[in-house]
Amino acid sequence: MIIVMDPTAGEREIGAVEAKIRTHGLGVHVSRGTERTLIGAIGDERALEPEMFETMPGVERALHILKPYKLVAREWHRASTTIDVGGVVVGGAEVQMIAGPCSVETPAQMNAAADAVAAGGARLMRGGAFKPRTSPYAFQGKGVDGLRLLKDAAARHGLPVVTELMDVRMLDTFLDQGVDVIQVGTRNMQNFDLLKEVGRVDVPVILKRGMSATVSEWLMAAEYVAAGGNHKIVLCERGIRTFETAYRNVLDVTAIPVLKRETHLPVIVDPSHAGGKAWMVPSLACAAVAAGADGLLVEVHPDPRQAWCDADQALTPADFATLMHRLAALAPAVGRRMAIRAEAWAFA
Amino acid sequence: MIIVMDPTAGEREIGAVEAKIRTHGLGVHVSRGTERTLIGAIGDERALEPEMFETMPGVERALHILKPYKLVAREWHRASTTIDVGGVVVGGAEVQMIAGPCSVETPAQMNAAADAVAAGGARLMRGGAFKPRTSPYAFQGKGVDGLRLLKDAAARHGLPVVTELMDVRMLDTFLDQGVDVIQVGTRNMQNFDLLKEVGRVDVPVILKRGMSATVSEWLMAAEYVAAGGNHKIVLCERGIRTFETAYRNVLDVTAIPVLKRETHLPVIVDPSHAGGKAWMVPSLACAAVAAGADGLLVEVHPDPRQAWCDADQALTPADFATLMHRLAALAPAVGRRMAIRAEAWAFA
Amino acid sequence: MIIVMDPTAGEREIGAVEAKIRTHGLGVHVSRGTERTLIGAIGDERALEPEMFETMPGVERALHILKPYKLVAREWHRASTTIDVGGVVVGGAEVQMIAGPCSVETPAQMNAAADAVAAGGARLMRGGAFKPRTSPYAFQGKGVDGLRLLKDAAARHGLPVVTELMDVRMLDTFLDQGVDVIQVGTRNMQNFDLLKEVGRVDVPVILKRGMSATVSEWLMAAEYVAAGGNHKIVLCERGIRTFETAYRNVLDVTAIPVLKRETHLPVIVDPSHAGGKAWMVPSLACAAVAAGADGLLVEVHPDPRQAWCDADQALTPADFATLMHRLAALAPAVGRRMAIRAEAWAFA
Amino acid sequence: MIIVMDPTAGEREIGAVEAKIRTHGLGVHVSRGTERTLIGAIGDERALEPEMFETMPGVERALHILKPYKLVAREWHRASTTIDVGGVVVGGAEVQMIAGPCSVETPAQMNAAADAVAAGGARLMRGGAFKPRTSPYAFQGKGVDGLRLLKDAAARHGLPVVTELMDVRMLDTFLDQGVDVIQVGTRNMQNFDLLKEVGRVDVPVILKRGMSATVSEWLMAAEYVAAGGNHKIVLCERGIRTFETAYRNVLDVTAIPVLKRETHLPVIVDPSHAGGKAWMVPSLACAAVAAGADGLLVEVHPDPRQAWCDADQALTPADFATLMHRLAALAPAVGRRMAIRAEAWAFA
Repeated sequence: MIIVMDPTAGEREIGAVEAKIRTHGLGVHVSRGTERTLIGAIGDERALEPEMFETMPGVERALHILKPYKLVAREWHRASTTIDVGGVVVGGAEVQMIAGPCSVETPAQMNAAADAVAAGGARLMRGGAFKPRTSPYAFQGKGVDGLRLLKDAAARHGLPVVTELMDVRMLDTFLDQGVDVIQVGTRNMQNFDLLKEVGRVDVPVILKRGMSATVSEWLMAAEYVAAGGNHKIVLCERGIRTFETAYRNVLDVTAIPVLKRETHLPVIVDPSHAGGKAWMVPSLACAAVAAGADGLLVEVHPDPRQAWCDADQALTPADFATLMHRLAALAPAVGRRMAIRAEAWAFA
Repeated sequence: MIIVMDPTAGEREIGAVEAKIRTHGLGVHVSRGTERTLIGAIGDERALEPEMFETMPGVERALHILKPYKLVAREWHRASTTIDVGGVVVGGAEVQMIAGPCSVETPAQMNAAADAVAAGGARLMRGGAFKPRTSPYAFQGKGVDGLRLLKDAAARHGLPVVTELMDVRMLDTFLDQGVDVIQVGTRNMQNFDLLKEVGRVDVPVILKRGMSATVSEWLMAAEYVAAGGNHKIVLCERGIRTFETAYRNVLDVTAIPVLKRETHLPVIVDPSHAGGKAWMVPSLACAAVAAGADGLLVEVHPDPRQAWCDADQALTPADFATLMHRLAALAPAVGRRMAIRAEAWAFA
Repeated sequence: MIIVMDPTAGEREIGAVEAKIRTHGLGVHVSRGTERTLIGAIGDERALEPEMFETMPGVERALHILKPYKLVAREWHRASTTIDVGGVVVGGAEVQMIAGPCSVETPAQMNAAADAVAAGGARLMRGGAFKPRTSPYAFQGKGVDGLRLLKDAAARHGLPVVTELMDVRMLDTFLDQGVDVIQVGTRNMQNFDLLKEVGRVDVPVILKRGMSATVSEWLMAAEYVAAGGNHKIVLCERGIRTFETAYRNVLDVTAIPVLKRETHLPVIVDPSHAGGKAWMVPSLACAAVAAGADGLLVEVHPDPRQAWCDADQALTPADFATLMHRLAALAPAVGRRMAIRAEAWAFA
Repeated sequence: MIIVMDPTAGEREIGAVEAKIRTHGLGVHVSRGTERTLIGAIGDERALEPEMFETMPGVERALHILKPYKLVAREWHRASTTIDVGGVVVGGAEVQMIAGPCSVETPAQMNAAADAVAAGGARLMRGGAFKPRTSPYAFQGKGVDGLRLLKDAAARHGLPVVTELMDVRMLDTFLDQGVDVIQVGTRNMQNFDLLKEVGRVDVPVILKRGMSATVSEWLMAAEYVAAGGNHKIVLCERGIRTFETAYRNVLDVTAIPVLKRETHLPVIVDPSHAGGKAWMVPSLACAAVAAGADGLLVEVHPDPRQAWCDADQALTPADFATLMHRLAALAPAVGRRMAIRAEAWAFA
């Protein structure tokens, strides 16, 4: 940490800062410039907070030099993490597609959805049983029954499932039902009690970025999970909130190369929520893979117009299959390969 | 709801939209313009979602005309809501000050803090026992012991207490401990399970605005609480996230007059988190009251430099007392009166 | 335009709104709902502004139904516009690369840059002679001499040139020097006098998006140019300003499919300014082409470490050549072809 | 400047950075920490740019320690600047009100507006002759005739005038017409050629903040004007662009105390453009003065409903007079006094 002293600070103020740094067990290095004196704290600065110094007389500001995250940082773990989900590897050479409807509705809808996901070639299935809705009057999900419907439909094609956990009290139920990947949603990225709990289990977690979370805050949320002992974390970019009103969110593709450099964790992208419209999904999905994403999370519904939520952002089975082919053609240009279910494209 | 048809839409597409509206029990009104045909849905459009129509052929877009919130809307409840917290009224003619430290630390610190709060004239005390921290390695709060310390210290001056609930599993404990006002923090504004639970109890709730929540999303979060039966809701603006890096957040004073018009609920402001520095607090506190806020939530610590969290944003007891006097002078200019504890300013 | 009346509005207020609409030569259509009365204006609503009505008694709000732009809208001009720049076509089947240094420095630097641009296969060259710098103390560009150096270096390989015009008084000089494409920079996107002037000449214009301009404002800026008679406009996305501090801007790839739908104008992307670091450029460039961009504007410098400005975002000639090959492999996956200078890849 | 070396950097990389710093005439100070080596540049770091170092091998990042502005910084000029505009002092103990219509329309409108401004007690008048409009089809202002109408109307009450300059070619005309204060608008905050030109004249300049300009960029824009020799600069906060859609902009009151600390220049606020609705103006105006603003820029129109632009944000003469009284009551609470034209409130 660097403490920048005010131009008016004298020896007494400088001495007080030095003393405070030493109290925390760190060394001190003073550098006297022409306009400012800088005091460096030597050692693991994660024990210090800028606010400890910014209230002291003569201090202009204090700034961290090191990144606040450690377990999830590539600096301390050079190799990329790969996560095995029932035999499907996320974070390796292959780009994974996770597809399925916004919400679990009926057995027939789920079976048709699973058929479409499998036929398209995806190896993981998604579906929401507990839905975070802006309005208390909107459909809130099928709950535990929904988990069962999701598992049953996916099992017909041997697809592991991904579904969102909103309430910490439901974690045991998720484990009992055999949820393969727990999704922590955008609105819960900084629900720290939830992060702590999923950090204690041995199930992979997809951690979606908060609507206006910085990359650093997002990695610190992942650090919460990792600090609990669960290192099977996948980061999911899903669009950020900006001033633009022509579309729901802005897909932040810049985050992809930045995350791949900062962390060893896999990074996937949700182009459906990012754009908010099905017709934008192919462009955004291609952009994500071209930018280096390890996977995609896409909404597919057997009949989008009848979907109980997010009807306008789900792909039809046909459009989904077309997208999978396009992605399979594109991935090699950036040195990747699209994971395709063996049974799906027998003669592809 | 208005459905705007594409210029190429024909009678068949228009008919399909009409039919869909009628299926939901609403009436239809078609208006044919020179460039577009508009279809209006007559009735309670809250049953409809734009996405139901935006996937239909020939539809350009669909837009809500009515606001999505109802219980919290001033349109349906003209009189301003006042909330009685142990004899202290929030939302009435008087502007309330809620003060105290960021986090509960020790009995001595809490007693000194309570003394400062009472001496300054405030009638409500705040203090955090459970702390939402960006880093898993930072102090996470004293927990249940902290609740007790807060209650004990405040009781010495008869001050009702406000404290943050992060984990839905702790709600019963909060009730057992006699927490007077439950605060739902910024990061939990859309933790819908938490909102539903606090909606079921009969304790006032302070609902802080999410870091980048729109006014509409914020009122919908309040609607969740109200829909559960708890109408004792206070909205708290605490600064929003923007592109600016010179300060932590931007205090959104514009939200104050807008909320006073849109909702009947009281609106308070947290100038401490908004600016992030103690020296900004007086200016922001005055701005908030001048703009029409019903109260303030301010961090005060007996010795800010020794505070365990947010050291740089807490006021000293002396600065707090000065601020209270300034606010007392300012409030009458905007037709309000600062609530001052009777014992505090005997001869004020 | 739809005027939404307040629930308390009576016949008198409704009548006044109707009368005002008719004064402007439009027809009126009244729709009485259960909670609100809506008044539609029938005709070219571009003559109306919401503010004309929002000040009238009984009016809640007024909203445009039609888009405010017309000349640049695809609705009125279905075919995509292609722009011929000295035989190089922007907006057609081929994706164009425009490359060169941030600023013109010396004849040697410009010749080496032109060699790199040509060798990499690009067909258009960029270079800044007038530089918009945040600081008045930073290098402001070589001015008119810079224009000459750019033209001379590019001429050696027959490359048309793109360069930024900041000051309306320099337009004639740009024309005299034979600038092939005039770039209007981010900070001047709403410099309306500059837009009007470039609207009067017959030279293609690249219009960069303002740092926080909405798609609608951007298209209205293009409409200014088109309204002057110059329809040779290329839109350039270059990253938007958000809350994120880990990178300079957020490249808004979502804008690409949205613009391709809203306007007939070509859309290109500047991945260099978007990310701000050379190592991010390949990922962002690939993402842009994958999302449907018609071209790229990339900074290339013969020796980035010695560059006089934006040193950290320029590619080396070698990295540029590698990127061109990667893009050439990727474009066909999204149905495009990378334009490659014939002489460059004789045996590619 | 501090250069943070990569953990893998060796002596050779450190040596190269040291050498580069010395080439620019600055001293070097190396500090070896446990995880990183830091290299400090001793001297006036304004000669250095982070990008000079961030492209060097072994460098993680480089950061400025000093602020980039100097002439406008309070650090170098402790006393607050006061600017005399025809006997009216901006930046002193008194808070100044600048009022008038959005645009100059007719002699009758301007005379009535001037009467209202003077009757309300304001000592400076505003009015737009050249209007920056989002649409090329909207009213663009009366031009030079408008300047004359503004001067004539204001002269009847001895009010100096403020009006916006958009086109650098009109500067001489502004001087010829006796414009007392030149306003540089939001969209031109980084129109550097315009800033340079107004920096060369001896007329006070109001520099509005760009829609998403940081405080630092804004002060650098002011530095452009000051670097030209014109130190009569007034900064005007007018609301920033955020994600919120319930109002046009978010008035950034936090900027007020921050600017008062960072710069010696006067700071005023435009509550009319910030909120976009006349009914919000009183709350925002009071908030601005409570937060420490040196003045306000408010739209007043004799008959807002008939205004040719921004009809919904102009105050009526009666509302303006009421606001002036409220502000006069409020200012003393924050240690200021509202400047009131002597003739206006003879018996106030």
